Amino acid sequence: MYITHLECPKCGSVFNHSEVVQLCKKCSAPLLARYDLKKIKKRFCTKKLKYRSYNLWRYKEFLPIENEKNIVSLGEVVTPLLKLKNFGKRLGFKRLYLKDEGLNPGGSFKSRGAAVGISKAKELGVKGFVMPTNGNAGAAWAIYAAKAGIKANIIMPKDAPLITRNECAASGAKLYLVNGLISDAGKIAAKAVKKYALMDASTLKEPYRIEGKKTMGFEIIEQFGWKVPDVILYPTGGGVGLIGIYKSLLELRETGVIDTFPRLVAVQAQNCAPIVKAYENGEKESVFWENAKTVAFGITVPKALGDFLVLEAVYKTNGTAVSVSDEAILEYQALLAKNEGLFICPEGAATAAAAHKLLKEGWIKEYEKVVLLNTGSGLKYPDTIQANFSLLSPDDEINL
Amino acid sequence: MYITHLECPKCGSVFNHSEVVQLCKKCSAPLLARYDLKKIKKRFCTKKLKYRSYNLWRYKEFLPIENEKNIVSLGEVVTPLLKLKNFGKRLGFKRLYLKDEGLNPGGSFKSRGAAVGISKAKELGVKGFVMPTNGNAGAAWAIYAAKAGIKANIIMPKDAPLITRNECAASGAKLYLVNGLISDAGKIAAKAVKKYALMDASTLKEPYRIEGKKTMGFEIIEQFGWKVPDVILYPTGGGVGLIGIYKSLLELRETGVIDTFPRLVAVQAQNCAPIVKAYENGEKESVFWENAKTVAFGITVPKALGDFLVLEAVYKTNGTAVSVSDEAILEYQALLAKNEGLFICPEGAATAAAAHKLLKEGWIKEYEKVVLLNTGSGLKYPDTIQANFSLLSPDDEINL
Repeated sequence: MYITHLECPKCGSVFNHSEVVQLCKKCSAPLLARYDLKKIKKRFCTKKLKYRSYNLWRYKEFLPIENEKNIVSLGEVVTPLLKLKNFGKRLGFKRLYLKDEGLNPGGSFKSRGAAVGISKAKELGVKGFVMPTNGNAGAAWAIYAAKAGIKANIIMPKDAPLITRNECAASGAKLYLVNGLISDAGKIAAKAVKKYALMDASTLKEPYRIEGKKTMGFEIIEQFGWKVPDVILYPTGGGVGLIGIYKSLLELRETGVIDTFPRLVAVQAQNCAPIVKAYENGEKESVFWENAKTVAFGITVPKALGDFLVLEAVYKTNGTAVSVSDEAILEYQALLAKNEGLFICPEGAATAAAAHKLLKEGWIKEYEKVVLLNTGSGLKYPDTIQANFSLLSPDDEINL
Repeated sequence: MYITHLECPKCGSVFNHSEVVQLCKKCSAPLLARYDLKKIKKRFCTKKLKYRSYNLWRYKEFLPIENEKNIVSLGEVVTPLLKLKNFGKRLGFKRLYLKDEGLNPGGSFKSRGAAVGISKAKELGVKGFVMPTNGNAGAAWAIYAAKAGIKANIIMPKDAPLITRNECAASGAKLYLVNGLISDAGKIAAKAVKKYALMDASTLKEPYRIEGKKTMGFEIIEQFGWKVPDVILYPTGGGVGLIGIYKSLLELRETGVIDTFPRLVAVQAQNCAPIVKAYENGEKESVFWENAKTVAFGITVPKALGDFLVLEAVYKTNGTAVSVSDEAILEYQALLAKNEGLFICPEGAATAAAAHKLLKEGWIKEYEKVVLLNTGSGLKYPDTIQANFSLLSPDDEINL
């Protein structure tokens, strides 16, 4: 395998990838896994992939697992990239696509981070971890931990999607609900890490979740025949997916597979938009967002540890950051279901609302190839839809 | 393409596949699609599949769509076949597998029937249909119909899983809830079909749903390297999946791909087991089951139209039919989550309970290759798990 070390993107410090390392020991920034990209460039060929299993492990040169026997899999698939013909036409796009991460095990893109994160934890001999989460990440890490025989301690806001509680509990994780936000869960987790010497699986406090998330980038590029689309819109809470996609682009450029980048767009909810605010002010970091609250619960992150990396990805790709209202999120969620049969999560729907806004503003052109990243299935958010129905008795007839 | 006609498996009558045909016009039995298998045998080669898209459409020679532009897709994937190492070891199996249909669009195996059924309906110019359902099939047909622009009328028992209501409503279907069972919904649907000249999409009353379901059989055989496993256990309500898998085996044998069959097991719930009762009495058809009620709601089917085909599949493959209690279903559902990180539906869990029962009885040997067919994701059944948790305030600590 080709992983060589962990590196701090802020101060450049280097750490050993064969030990459990969390944040940079010098400046407390998140660490990134580094690979011998020159060697990969010599040996990697996209044609080879035809003969590999059709899931994220096909990009093994760019993944940190050194012994394949440590791979913990729940049947990850290459998620579909769907052309939205009906919806796109209605909005005025000629080439609008949706990457549907709802088809991952557990129904969300969090499985990618968990698959690689738990596999690497197993490789490093980790026995237990603690994780603050808005729900889906905790559920994903809990199910993969069950398979691996690693002990999971999950802390989530009491308002997190109900189903994610059940996933954690069913898979044998120890579950805590906090009367607050993910930032409060994070504080409790930090105390537990100190007290019990557990691995800290908080967003970006362990370096391998991002390696799983970056496979979304590899898949999108491969699904376009190893060409890049013009724009990718991503619903941004902690932002790991966006950081991961940007990392995949850098690695694919470095290894000679691509030579241009899509413009990356960070999409947030109007009532929790710290990254958008920082972008609009030209800042490199964000400020804690007070009184955060949105129907897109998964992106309710008042201050992301990796905010500077998200902003870098946006700036360096000539992207942008844009916020949308809760009303728009629910409206576009309904439109996608009615026009495309796609029942997606509110976070994913936020990218549809944002894409339309950017099209109307002229930032996106109608002929551009645009990818909406839907991070999860609407099945996990049953309460965002109210079903109208007629109640019948067995002897009734229906009237159209 | 290779479809030649529709045939009645009871009286042998032949019908034109280029028209909308429902049941046999002579004896009212379900119709089966027939293909020119001799021609397929000459031209089909499993090696060809390497270059095809990784979803059910890769078996296009065996599917009824004549023009690929009619394919309606929501991003179907080849669902994973997972080896259950932890759970298998615990129960005493050496080679226990689970085919996880929860990764289909909409979270259930019903998508396969809907993908092929709606595509063929589009090809035939169908504008609208009515369907009685236990929830998941209606949801699947509603989302594919939305994509195709076909009008869906869905009738389900009011006790069907709540989320399936939302999927129907979100995708623009007209939704009716009946204060009764699927058999009551079926009667209402039959009246609507007559009154409004709608297509009847009831189980086996249209011949193409089964063509989609049979791709589970193709996938399982391909995933074992074009070899057959020893046993496949299937949760049986209407039984279309089992009929479909048996049909796939017959077609693969006829085209020279396989020469032996797995033993097919129809699994039912103790409180709704008409097929098991018929099997135990050596009958060819089942009798309506009074007061049917089980936690595995999807298989609450008191009398299946295709019961004779299910029983034929079981008899001809030296299979069996077995029922399990609701307590066992919930117990094995929990065991699978804790040991394998798989949060599956109660129907799927029934096959795990049945497999263990058959192992203990000696009907299955410990070294045999056994496949559990999980028909859907546990995400659609949030109430089958009760989550235990501790409630914390932001200033609290956790104690392990």
